Amino acid sequence: MSLLVVGSVAFDTIKTAQGTAEDVLGGSATYCAYAASFFAPVRLVSPVGEDMPAAHLENMQKHNIDTAGIHVVKGGKTFRWVGSYSDDFLERTTERVDLNVFGDYDTTLPAEYLDSEYVFLANGAPEAQKEVLEQLPNRKLAFLDTMNHWIAGSRGALLDVIKIIDGIVLNDEEARLLTGEKNLLTAARKIAAMGPKTVVIKKGEHGSILVSDGRPFVVPARLTETVNDPTGAGDCFGGGMMGYVANTGGTSFDALKAGIVYGTVIASFCIEDFSVDRLRSISLEDIDRRRRELSSMISWA
Amino acid sequence: MSLLVVGSVAFDTIKTAQGTAEDVLGGSATYCAYAASFFAPVRLVSPVGEDMPAAHLENMQKHNIDTAGIHVVKGGKTFRWVGSYSDDFLERTTERVDLNVFGDYDTTLPAEYLDSEYVFLANGAPEAQKEVLEQLPNRKLAFLDTMNHWIAGSRGALLDVIKIIDGIVLNDEEARLLTGEKNLLTAARKIAAMGPKTVVIKKGEHGSILVSDGRPFVVPARLTETVNDPTGAGDCFGGGMMGYVANTGGTSFDALKAGIVYGTVIASFCIEDFSVDRLRSISLEDIDRRRRELSSMISWA
Repeated sequence: MSLLVVGSVAFDTIKTAQGTAEDVLGGSATYCAYAASFFAPVRLVSPVGEDMPAAHLENMQKHNIDTAGIHVVKGGKTFRWVGSYSDDFLERTTERVDLNVFGDYDTTLPAEYLDSEYVFLANGAPEAQKEVLEQLPNRKLAFLDTMNHWIAGSRGALLDVIKIIDGIVLNDEEARLLTGEKNLLTAARKIAAMGPKTVVIKKGEHGSILVSDGRPFVVPARLTETVNDPTGAGDCFGGGMMGYVANTGGTSFDALKAGIVYGTVIASFCIEDFSVDRLRSISLEDIDRRRRELSSMISWA
Repeated sequence: MSLLVVGSVAFDTIKTAQGTAEDVLGGSATYCAYAASFFAPVRLVSPVGEDMPAAHLENMQKHNIDTAGIHVVKGGKTFRWVGSYSDDFLERTTERVDLNVFGDYDTTLPAEYLDSEYVFLANGAPEAQKEVLEQLPNRKLAFLDTMNHWIAGSRGALLDVIKIIDGIVLNDEEARLLTGEKNLLTAARKIAAMGPKTVVIKKGEHGSILVSDGRPFVVPARLTETVNDPTGAGDCFGGGMMGYVANTGGTSFDALKAGIVYGTVIASFCIEDFSVDRLRSISLEDIDRRRRELSSMISWA
């Protein structure tokens, strides 16, 4: 089955201890789509400006990503983010955000996407996420990602869409902000009580937690010394997970578990280079090799 | 094989959101010994004062812990620690420390312990740790635990004992302080370069990392909502690990891996009650049941 991915396609300017990247392809939906496309055909929906080079979209098409849902806004400019990381990558500073066309876009989906069964609403305004969801009567598994900005500033709208979503992906800090709970298992349970059957909490270098129908599952992150740019890792995690699950055609706990393992592995590639560069250089074979390596890193006799 | 445990036996007064415990049995070696004793007979070495009730030592003896190495210092008072935790358990405040007899004790081991092959030097002064180590010509596997206090204040002495130890157990913050490295895998490798073949980094609620002979292994912590007092969890982790390894009679990577899994499980019991109360109420069967539960929490198809 294909996966519908809705969110931002952007230009990022990023500074890390390892280097600087200027105006490179970024955006939550971009990372998510690339990660998912290793497992399932992706339908990508996002507004961009006229400044988006055709080459970026052509590269996506070569990567199993349908870009019919990329809406080029006449006279518009693409979403831009400028940020930097502390030398240890533990802190991220946003230096500038220009929402541009992503600030208020038409969420009407292309007619040919309305039969989508697997849906990932990458980070974005909860109102837009809800509008997208309501156009998809056949949805079988829909997940959303969110962030502090919406939890603090659009709580009501976020709770509205959380109520009708099947699964949510967010990081530890966001889970604590949303629930007021420090214990992550308690936080996951409180979020599940808001609606979603499945809650996935990302903990960065510490891995992730999945709680589905009350059943917990834990995946540690792959230990690595090679980090060049963590941007997009969380989006790759969510996209890889949903791409894998879409490919199974089901929604089982086992599929979700394997999905977050694959998400973990793809995120571990993402951080090795800027933009989606590393994702464009690897194959499913590389992913499977690293999955086996992760497996042996956590298996005991 | 038996395990020699050297460190503090103390009285703790602890305040957490869940309650208060006054003058309860604590100390790094106490927790460590109780945890190890599920797997191997323990030889416990520590100085205590005349204020140590016989009942505490009798309880230890019933729990497979030999207390011949508990030296009651005439006219002395037992080490006391007073501390509290923030409501979310993420911060610990030491309100008072009275080292008392633990401040400067005679490290001469009982003659019948000098053949010890498995050794755990629980948190304590590195000079004393080294003096103990040098009395043990037959040692097969010796680990030490340490803390910020020694890393910052007794760095030279600590490096001296690290140079001759087989393995070290410390938490993420301590590993970063010792090496100046934020990346934990890099930190582990730098510590290994200081001497020990095996480095174990504890990450509290995020589990632990083992790097032995360059090979990494990761165990997540058991997800739990039941935390009453985290005091001693790290000591139980180290003690459980070494008790398990001592019981195998070997020093293999597989034994170390299984050891830190058991350490993780025993730490998960420790935090459910104050002092060693929870450890005194469980059986090896309970531990194995929880180990299987942890295993299913992290196993994927």
